[in-house]
Amino acid sequence: MALAFRFLTFTSDYGLEDEFVGVCRGVIKRFAQDVEILDISHAIPPQDLRAGANVLAQAVRFMPPAVHLAIVDPGVGTHRRAVVIGTAQGPPLVGPDNGLLSLAAEALGGAVQAHEIAREELFLQPVSRTFHGRDIFAPVAARLALGMPPDEVGPSIPVAELVKLEMPTSKVDDDHVHGQVVQTDHFGNLQLNVSREELESLGIMLGDPLELRVGGKAHAVKFCQAFAEVPAGRLAVLEDSYRRISVAVNQGSAAKRLEARRGDPVILARAHKR
Amino acid sequence: MALAFRFLTFTSDYGLEDEFVGVCRGVIKRFAQDVEILDISHAIPPQDLRAGANVLAQAVRFMPPAVHLAIVDPGVGTHRRAVVIGTAQGPPLVGPDNGLLSLAAEALGGAVQAHEIAREELFLQPVSRTFHGRDIFAPVAARLALGMPPDEVGPSIPVAELVKLEMPTSKVDDDHVHGQVVQTDHFGNLQLNVSREELESLGIMLGDPLELRVGGKAHAVKFCQAFAEVPAGRLAVLEDSYRRISVAVNQGSAAKRLEARRGDPVILARAHKR
Amino acid sequence: MALAFRFLTFTSDYGLEDEFVGVCRGVIKRFAQDVEILDISHAIPPQDLRAGANVLAQAVRFMPPAVHLAIVDPGVGTHRRAVVIGTAQGPPLVGPDNGLLSLAAEALGGAVQAHEIAREELFLQPVSRTFHGRDIFAPVAARLALGMPPDEVGPSIPVAELVKLEMPTSKVDDDHVHGQVVQTDHFGNLQLNVSREELESLGIMLGDPLELRVGGKAHAVKFCQAFAEVPAGRLAVLEDSYRRISVAVNQGSAAKRLEARRGDPVILARAHKR
Repeated sequence: MALAFRFLTFTSDYGLEDEFVGVCRGVIKRFAQDVEILDISHAIPPQDLRAGANVLAQAVRFMPPAVHLAIVDPGVGTHRRAVVIGTAQGPPLVGPDNGLLSLAAEALGGAVQAHEIAREELFLQPVSRTFHGRDIFAPVAARLALGMPPDEVGPSIPVAELVKLEMPTSKVDDDHVHGQVVQTDHFGNLQLNVSREELESLGIMLGDPLELRVGGKAHAVKFCQAFAEVPAGRLAVLEDSYRRISVAVNQGSAAKRLEARRGDPVILARAHKR
Repeated sequence: MALAFRFLTFTSDYGLEDEFVGVCRGVIKRFAQDVEILDISHAIPPQDLRAGANVLAQAVRFMPPAVHLAIVDPGVGTHRRAVVIGTAQGPPLVGPDNGLLSLAAEALGGAVQAHEIAREELFLQPVSRTFHGRDIFAPVAARLALGMPPDEVGPSIPVAELVKLEMPTSKVDDDHVHGQVVQTDHFGNLQLNVSREELESLGIMLGDPLELRVGGKAHAVKFCQAFAEVPAGRLAVLEDSYRRISVAVNQGSAAKRLEARRGDPVILARAHKR
Repeated sequence: MALAFRFLTFTSDYGLEDEFVGVCRGVIKRFAQDVEILDISHAIPPQDLRAGANVLAQAVRFMPPAVHLAIVDPGVGTHRRAVVIGTAQGPPLVGPDNGLLSLAAEALGGAVQAHEIAREELFLQPVSRTFHGRDIFAPVAARLALGMPPDEVGPSIPVAELVKLEMPTSKVDDDHVHGQVVQTDHFGNLQLNVSREELESLGIMLGDPLELRVGGKAHAVKFCQAFAEVPAGRLAVLEDSYRRISVAVNQGSAAKRLEARRGDPVILARAHKR
C-alpha cells in the first residue's frame, strides 16, 4: 500500500537503556508496518525541551519527506495538549505542545496549521497517564504516515496559540558580541547563538585572531574554518556545519576545557593590537 | 519471498560501544535479508538476567508478531542450553535457557513447547565458545523468521524443565505492603512489584496521601496519576504504564533522591491522621 | 530499482547524543531511499582511529555484501583525502584516508583500487568544513549503493599510497610472549595481539595454567575455552570469537580488575612447576 510518508523520524529523551524506544517502534510498526523509522536521537537529556527542540530543528532540514515524531514531555498526563503541526514545507510534526516542536516548525517554513490530538479511538487502549509516546503519539504518527489527514486527529488550533520556545538573542556591542552557549555536542563543541555575519560586522574575518571570554577568563583564539587548523588540544572558534559560530578544541572537548555548558554567556571580541 | 515473521526483535547486554550488535544484525541479514530487526534494548546491564527478562517481558506485548531474540548469557560456551520456546500467543523466543526468556514467555500466554538448539548445520561456522549471539542465536532466529519449524533446531524439551526466574513477591500486612524495587529506568523511576489492587486493599485510593519507607527513611507522598501532579523535584507514587506501582520524582530521579536500586525493600503504608 | 548494494554499513565516532548519526541516515535515504543502513557502532571514542579501524575490520567479515561507510575524522576540513577503496572481496569502503579503513581493507582481501572523492557535484551543497559525514561521505556512499562506479568519484590513487595503520606486533621470547592490549570491549574484556598459535608454540595448550603479567603484577590464570570455566569474578585467558587471545573476568571486567587499557603491554608465560 502506498504510504503518504515513507519515513517517520523519531526523537525523544527516552534513552536506550530501557524498552521505551523499542516499544514505540513496535507500536508504530503494528499500525504502519511499511513505514521506515529514522531515529534522530533518543539521548535528549531528560525533560530538556530546549535541547530536544534544537536537535530536532537542526535535523529536519536534512531528512527525506517524513512525519516527525518528537517526545520530551515533562507534562505528560496533565492538561498540556498533544498536537499535530502542519508545516509550510509539508512534513507534519507530532508531539506535545510544549515548545519542543516550535524550532523545527520554523526550520520547515513555519507552522501553517495545527490540530489537537483528541480522538481517543486513534489511541492504543488502555491509555496510560505516563507513557503517551506509546499510547498516543506513536499510533497517531503511524496513521499520519499511512495517509490519515491531520484534521482527523481532533479540533483545529490557531497556530498563534502553539507554545513557542524562544532562542536566546545575541547582542553586538562596540567591538564585541554577547552570545550564549545554545548546545554542547558529543565532542564537547559549544554551539553559540552567534552568526558569522555578527563577527564580520565587528571586522573579525576568517583567519583573524579574536578574544573569547567565558567563565571569567579571556582566551586568544583564531577564527578558523576547520578544527585541524590549530594544533591538537588548542581552542578554535569556527562556523559549524549549521552555520552557527562554535567554540571547539581540536581533538578535545571545549566543554571540559572551559567548564562551560548550555546557557553560559560567552563574549567574542576583536583582538586588540598591543 | 514470504516470511513466516516479518519482524525480529533483538534484546541483549552487548552494549553499543563495540561491533557485537552490528555483527549480529549483519548475520541475521545474511540469512534472512528481508526480515526487519526491531531493537528493544542492548543496554541490559552485563549478565543481568533479571533486568533483561523484565525489559523483554514488558516489551513483547507491544510488538508486532515477531521472532524474539534475546541474549544475556553469562554461561555462554558451557553446558547451559540454547532454546527456542513456542508461546501460546505464537511468537517464538530464542536465547539461552537461563531464565532470561521466562517472563516474556508468561507475557505471551505461557510456553507451550520448547526445543534445544542443537543442529550444528544451522550455525555460523566455525562456532566460537564466547559469541553464540553471532554464531548460533542470530542464524537460528533468522531461519525461524524465514519459516523453519522450531522442531528442526533440535530435540524437544518439556516446558516444565525450562529455567524460570521468579518475580519477588509482595506482601500486604495490616496497613502496609512490603514490596521491592524490580527495575529502575532511564529517568530514575523505581518500578515496584506492587499492584494498584494491593494499595486499594489498604484503602489507598488515587489522590490519597501515603507513606513511603525506603532506606530507613519515611516520606509523605501522594498517590498520583501523572508525574506533574506534584511540583517539580517532588516524590510521587503512581501506577506506571505497565500497571505496576512506581516511585518517581517529577522532572527528577527517584533512584538518585532515594539512593535506591533494584532489590531494595520498599514499604508503602496508609498515611496516619495526626 | 535494483541497487548495486542493498546494504550500507555505518561506523563512526559521532555518538548517539546528537543528531549527527540521524542526519547522515537521513541524507543517505534522500539519495538512496531503498538502501538498508546497518549500524556497526557509533561509539568509537572521539578521534580514535585505531579503535574505529579495529571495530570495522572485525565486523566487515560478518556483514552481507555492502558499502561500508566509516567516519572517524580528526583531519576533517583539511587536506587529508576522502577516498573510496575497492577490495578484493568486492565491498567498497568509504571514508577519510587516515588509516581508519586500512584494517578492514585487509579483512576484505586487500585494497585493489582507490579513488579520491573529489567531484563536488556529488556532494550535499553547501559543503561544510566540519561535517563531511553529512555533506560528502553519506551522499557518496549512497550513490555507490545505487550503482555509481567508484571511478566516478574522482581521480585514481595508487593503493600503495593509502594511509595504513599498523597493528602492534607480538614477540615470542623463550617461555613467554610479549603482547599488547589492542582493544577493550563493553564487558571489559582485553583483546590482545596474541594468537593461539603463539601460546601453543610455548607449549601452552587449552586447559593449561599460565602466568599473566600486566601492570607490574603476575597472575596465575587458566587458558580456557569459555568464560564460565572459572568461578565468577576470576580471571581467564581465552581465544575470543575473532580468534585472538583475550583476558577476561567471568561475569566481571578485566579492564577494571587489571586497570588495563589499549596499548598496555601484557606478557603471557608458561606456568612454572614449583
